Amino acid sequence: MRHHFYRHLATATAVSLVVLASPAVMAQEVRQEPVADFTLANGLEVVVIPDHRAPVVTHMLWYKVGGSDEEPGKSGIAHFFEHLMFKGTKNAKPGEFSRRVAEIGGQENAFTSNDYTAYYQQVSPDVLPDMMRFEADRMRNLILTDEVIGPERDVILEERNSRVDSDPGGILAEEIDATLYQNHPYGTPVIGWKHEIAQLNRKDAIDFYDRYYAPNNAVLVVAGDVDAETVKKLAEDTYAKVPRGPDLPPRIRPTEPEQNTARTVTLKDPRVGVPSFQKNWLVPSYTSAVREKLDGEPEALDLLSEILGGGIRSRLHQELVVKRGIASSAGAYYQGTALDDTDITFYGSPRGAASLAEVEAAIDSEIAKLIESGVTQEELDRARNRFLRSLIFARDSQSGMARIYGSTLTTGGSIRDIDEWPDRIRKVTTDDIRAVAKKYLSPDRAVTGYLLPAGGNAG
Amino acid sequence: MRHHFYRHLATATAVSLVVLASPAVMAQEVRQEPVADFTLANGLEVVVIPDHRAPVVTHMLWYKVGGSDEEPGKSGIAHFFEHLMFKGTKNAKPGEFSRRVAEIGGQENAFTSNDYTAYYQQVSPDVLPDMMRFEADRMRNLILTDEVIGPERDVILEERNSRVDSDPGGILAEEIDATLYQNHPYGTPVIGWKHEIAQLNRKDAIDFYDRYYAPNNAVLVVAGDVDAETVKKLAEDTYAKVPRGPDLPPRIRPTEPEQNTARTVTLKDPRVGVPSFQKNWLVPSYTSAVREKLDGEPEALDLLSEILGGGIRSRLHQELVVKRGIASSAGAYYQGTALDDTDITFYGSPRGAASLAEVEAAIDSEIAKLIESGVTQEELDRARNRFLRSLIFARDSQSGMARIYGSTLTTGGSIRDIDEWPDRIRKVTTDDIRAVAKKYLSPDRAVTGYLLPAGGNAG
Repeated sequence: MRHHFYRHLATATAVSLVVLASPAVMAQEVRQEPVADFTLANGLEVVVIPDHRAPVVTHMLWYKVGGSDEEPGKSGIAHFFEHLMFKGTKNAKPGEFSRRVAEIGGQENAFTSNDYTAYYQQVSPDVLPDMMRFEADRMRNLILTDEVIGPERDVILEERNSRVDSDPGGILAEEIDATLYQNHPYGTPVIGWKHEIAQLNRKDAIDFYDRYYAPNNAVLVVAGDVDAETVKKLAEDTYAKVPRGPDLPPRIRPTEPEQNTARTVTLKDPRVGVPSFQKNWLVPSYTSAVREKLDGEPEALDLLSEILGGGIRSRLHQELVVKRGIASSAGAYYQGTALDDTDITFYGSPRGAASLAEVEAAIDSEIAKLIESGVTQEELDRARNRFLRSLIFARDSQSGMARIYGSTLTTGGSIRDIDEWPDRIRKVTTDDIRAVAKKYLSPDRAVTGYLLPAGGNAG
Repeated sequence: MRHHFYRHLATATAVSLVVLASPAVMAQEVRQEPVADFTLANGLEVVVIPDHRAPVVTHMLWYKVGGSDEEPGKSGIAHFFEHLMFKGTKNAKPGEFSRRVAEIGGQENAFTSNDYTAYYQQVSPDVLPDMMRFEADRMRNLILTDEVIGPERDVILEERNSRVDSDPGGILAEEIDATLYQNHPYGTPVIGWKHEIAQLNRKDAIDFYDRYYAPNNAVLVVAGDVDAETVKKLAEDTYAKVPRGPDLPPRIRPTEPEQNTARTVTLKDPRVGVPSFQKNWLVPSYTSAVREKLDGEPEALDLLSEILGGGIRSRLHQELVVKRGIASSAGAYYQGTALDDTDITFYGSPRGAASLAEVEAAIDSEIAKLIESGVTQEELDRARNRFLRSLIFARDSQSGMARIYGSTLTTGGSIRDIDEWPDRIRKVTTDDIRAVAKKYLSPDRAVTGYLLPAGGNAG
């Protein structure tokens, strides 16, 4: 699955990015002022999403670079910048930007995925000029010395230790990805392999910064109590002064070969209490489907995962958790917003006396049943309504809206894709659902991960 | 496991390269004239191994480049040269070199591994000057046009189709490697992924040729009825005239993260009659052990695989095939001659009414028993004698001897390593064997491949 790593400064808890799983919302139903989109002379694309319900503005700068753009052997350098960007620049002391956000009661954060890196602040509109000035400054003026890099590398190694290496689920997730992706860099963890993080140095950082941190490789998204003209003027005063960076080639990464085998990945660990499993398949993303001429499949995969495993009304939850009572959880998710072929995941964990094997068999059986008999029109309609409704809620969050635009525009999608997306979801038929299930969810090509207590077994 | 691909011209059957599994022979016991080793001004290393028993000479040119040196997304380009090198040069028509070898009753071949590419001819000594002239010529003078590349790409795709895609075992082997190697390019097939071969073009070929095909990236090995002075003089007339190529950086590839999971890879196919399995672990190679300060481990792994699975006197064969009669085959091999961490493999196939699961359990049990109780001194001595003796036989083949030098020198080893190797094997103790077994052969980190008939299962 595509992983996000968050850096938390002002915020105390992880921000849910579940909305990223789909590239759009019911934009036209609820939007009031139109979204503005323009490009500065230096190549920076700017999207303004007016939202005047509260005197708040979300300022997000997205870079079209993520973990999967790293050179082999340099894993973790993209995420490294999520840390380095909070250090000093030629014009601002280390931490000065963050202190400014904190002193006016704002929030800030940053996150890195396989495909993008983003930085944001949520503040009152009067300090937006300040935010833009600081953000434009650190796009090019970071001071990258050994004194900065060395200690921060230790911080990141400790972050990796606490998030991945101390967590059996984290370790397993990495090896599942490495197994599912046989050739594509989605198999490499965004935070980086430990031994490669440990080798990252000043030269790596400067090379990466000079290549990818430039206005023509970024998208600015400003959502909130502000209008496009104001943002445009402010952008001219700040970002427009940053010189254009190198022209980058298309983001073409090694792609997957045909997958011909069923694979399993098993981790037994004394820290695991209740066993769990997940089953993954390689499927097209919204962007790769366009390249591969698989129109409509991502939309069908979104609804397939909703019907089978999206929340408490889904088949898996109803059958395994509610009706049979053998699972404490069971569901599915599809990561459609990605530059390249992505994955759909089914998961479950047993309850009471039930075994993990029973839960897995029940999920397999639900998938087989759907492939065999499809879904009814009524079931599709209900799932589609739930799905579209959940996106209206997502849109209600200013930062959620900004994330939809940012993540879509940095993974090969367009504003038109966002606008048209609800209609494309509406066009999905019951046949489409069954067709993608049949095409992709073959037991002979699944990658299944088992997280087991020490001494446990998957059977 | 490290794969070799062979191109057969004069030879009708595959040449066994089993001797490559270990980097040396009982050189000092049987060598008559000393091996000569010198380097030309342009960087070409030359090794001459006199062997006057018959009027035959083996001329092998080894390049320090293989599949694992390719850029991501360009898999197959190293092996592509195994074909392109038989096309025309500025001075020789397509096939002219091969016709010359054939008309004098010689043999020729070429092979590509993850770490090296080699070309050789076996001829009478009087035509050695010709061979050296042709070989030196194609080092730099290949004509690489679209007219050459396009048709040969189709030939390679067909080669891949017949060797891999039409063979369930070939497909499975690729996905086992891709699963075992989570980060290192040994996970990419030497012949290349089909969709990447299909994209290889003239520019890729020229870039690769200009980077890697140069005297300072090659080792010439001449074995046979010839003396060092003669070879030196001939080399001065031929190879010495080829200009030095670019200085290449050290061959440092992405390395494996810690492996924490047990993984399985299963292929069910109607073409499979009798099921089989193999179990692989990541272990140091002779070269990586030096880097990682694991002195003596490769030698212990060589003897461990001999004791457990090397031929009919091994524990696995004796227990599973002879005594219990549950397996038609059972054994082990270790690929120590590699630039980077490599693998040790155990395999087996059931006989009669026995199930694959029984065979696997029996092999697991033999491994567990060795970890628990070790081996006796007498057993080690017998295995060591068998092992060293098999290498004397290998040395008896002129081309086998040349291959030992070529493969060692192109995977980071030295002539001194070859000379000292028998003594290092003699120093291995029973404790060393048990220690490497215990350290590496953990069931919780094995990658197991199952090749099953359609409808079969591994249990």
